[in-house]
Amino acid sequence: MSAPQPVMSAAELNDYIFEVYPQILDQYPGHQVMLVEPGRVVVRMDTDERHIRAGGTVSGPTLFALADMGGYSCVLSHVGREALAVTTNLNINFMRKAEPGRLEADCTILKLGKRLMVFEASICVEGSDDVIAHATGTYAIPPK
Amino acid sequence: MSAPQPVMSAAELNDYIFEVYPQILDQYPGHQVMLVEPGRVVVRMDTDERHIRAGGTVSGPTLFALADMGGYSCVLSHVGREALAVTTNLNINFMRKAEPGRLEADCTILKLGKRLMVFEASICVEGSDDVIAHATGTYAIPPK
Amino acid sequence: MSAPQPVMSAAELNDYIFEVYPQILDQYPGHQVMLVEPGRVVVRMDTDERHIRAGGTVSGPTLFALADMGGYSCVLSHVGREALAVTTNLNINFMRKAEPGRLEADCTILKLGKRLMVFEASICVEGSDDVIAHATGTYAIPPK
Amino acid sequence: MSAPQPVMSAAELNDYIFEVYPQILDQYPGHQVMLVEPGRVVVRMDTDERHIRAGGTVSGPTLFALADMGGYSCVLSHVGREALAVTTNLNINFMRKAEPGRLEADCTILKLGKRLMVFEASICVEGSDDVIAHATGTYAIPPK
Repeated sequence: MSAPQPVMSAAELNDYIFEVYPQILDQYPGHQVMLVEPGRVVVRMDTDERHIRAGGTVSGPTLFALADMGGYSCVLSHVGREALAVTTNLNINFMRKAEPGRLEADCTILKLGKRLMVFEASICVEGSDDVIAHATGTYAIPPK
Repeated sequence: MSAPQPVMSAAELNDYIFEVYPQILDQYPGHQVMLVEPGRVVVRMDTDERHIRAGGTVSGPTLFALADMGGYSCVLSHVGREALAVTTNLNINFMRKAEPGRLEADCTILKLGKRLMVFEASICVEGSDDVIAHATGTYAIPPK
Repeated sequence: MSAPQPVMSAAELNDYIFEVYPQILDQYPGHQVMLVEPGRVVVRMDTDERHIRAGGTVSGPTLFALADMGGYSCVLSHVGREALAVTTNLNINFMRKAEPGRLEADCTILKLGKRLMVFEASICVEGSDDVIAHATGTYAIPPK
Repeated sequence: MSAPQPVMSAAELNDYIFEVYPQILDQYPGHQVMLVEPGRVVVRMDTDERHIRAGGTVSGPTLFALADMGGYSCVLSHVGREALAVTTNLNINFMRKAEPGRLEADCTILKLGKRLMVFEASICVEGSDDVIAHATGTYAIPPK
């Protein structure tokens, strides 16, 4: 398979996300798209005491949010300014506990169709390659 | 199957959750366990402008958080004060858009084993029976 | 939500499935749609020594096949003769072991859109209400 | 993460699978473990007219079976002769249609704990790198 080609750079994507989803930085400080390549996007997020659960580790909803923003960044960067693309399904496995800090999601597009995009995301602490959580999900692309 | 029996009431469970997970009300105002029955728990959450995504509807991570708190409430209410029970897997389908407001998750225990609990959750706007999102998930129960 | 209305009876659906998918009875003897109601379908399957895995219990692929036929029956019965409707995602939790015998999947349509149908399926041994496996899945409906 | 180390070779694993699960070759001809490496297993399967669905493409249950055998091969090769390891959850996305023929599943262990193993599997037609289906799943490892 030749990987799908992006239509926006990381910088353009960050500007667009902050424009259509201004809440993101209040809820998830440090959110940023770091890399856009053919069929691949890397996003990061900072987590602090607001994002932990009982036991002092980063909460499931926080990891879900990072995976979901990774998928959203995949679809926008490769399809264009379709703010209303929506998640239809997301499956996530939680594998290791993580202390609060900077997290990265490395996301790959598995399929980019006209109506659906399927992706996977591996979440690690920045600088580590231990996978904390792994997700696969589907976005519906609005009809033209 | 005879449904598993709860070991805590809704009031005891609310007290315990606020004790071990004090962050919850900052992130998710109005979070409350409304009902605990054999094999079933209902939890609610209020959503406002902080919980919406592009397009003005309640975000995926918010709906995930409610489903996940429903599962956490299932395991605690039926197993006891095991704050360190953790989600191992959660799969969620998003089916309808929802305006910000009060949401409820009606959760059923599908299996309560010694090591794993499996549940499903249907999320609706309070007072409606249109399912906005449906989740199934697994919690790992800490060994004694 | 008012439940979606079926457009085919169980008898019409059985005829149609055997016409477009004649392999089904070789692989899965006794496969039959038992009930079609608004938003709900019940399908059954007989399992024998061909369908067991190590340990003598019914195999995962067999239970997957029953859940998937349940979803296929949901979409066909409520959308019409769309043999090329395809599963895009299926998530299944295996909860109890089952001896070979007659199994039933009780399936509910969670959403019937123009492009996607989402369903859930609970699989039990006929005559029991212990859930052996629970699945949720999505079918893509071919464009007109 | 240092990848987990296998405790059986591909040849030992094939012998063991045929011993504990003799049905496999009747249902899935050509099933074979091709490769065992630290944290990784490749399995293959031949598909023919028995494995197709309406439309002439390889059926979902067949692809599920290959992904599931990949996960089973991951757990056995890295934990040892634990025939009673069982799938607790499997999530699969179907992305492209495939003609009958030889299929391969390239499987990676995402986590190998004492009680649970999590893996992912990418399924392709032999000799192609177009991903037909992608799965993630969890196996429960029997207590010692």
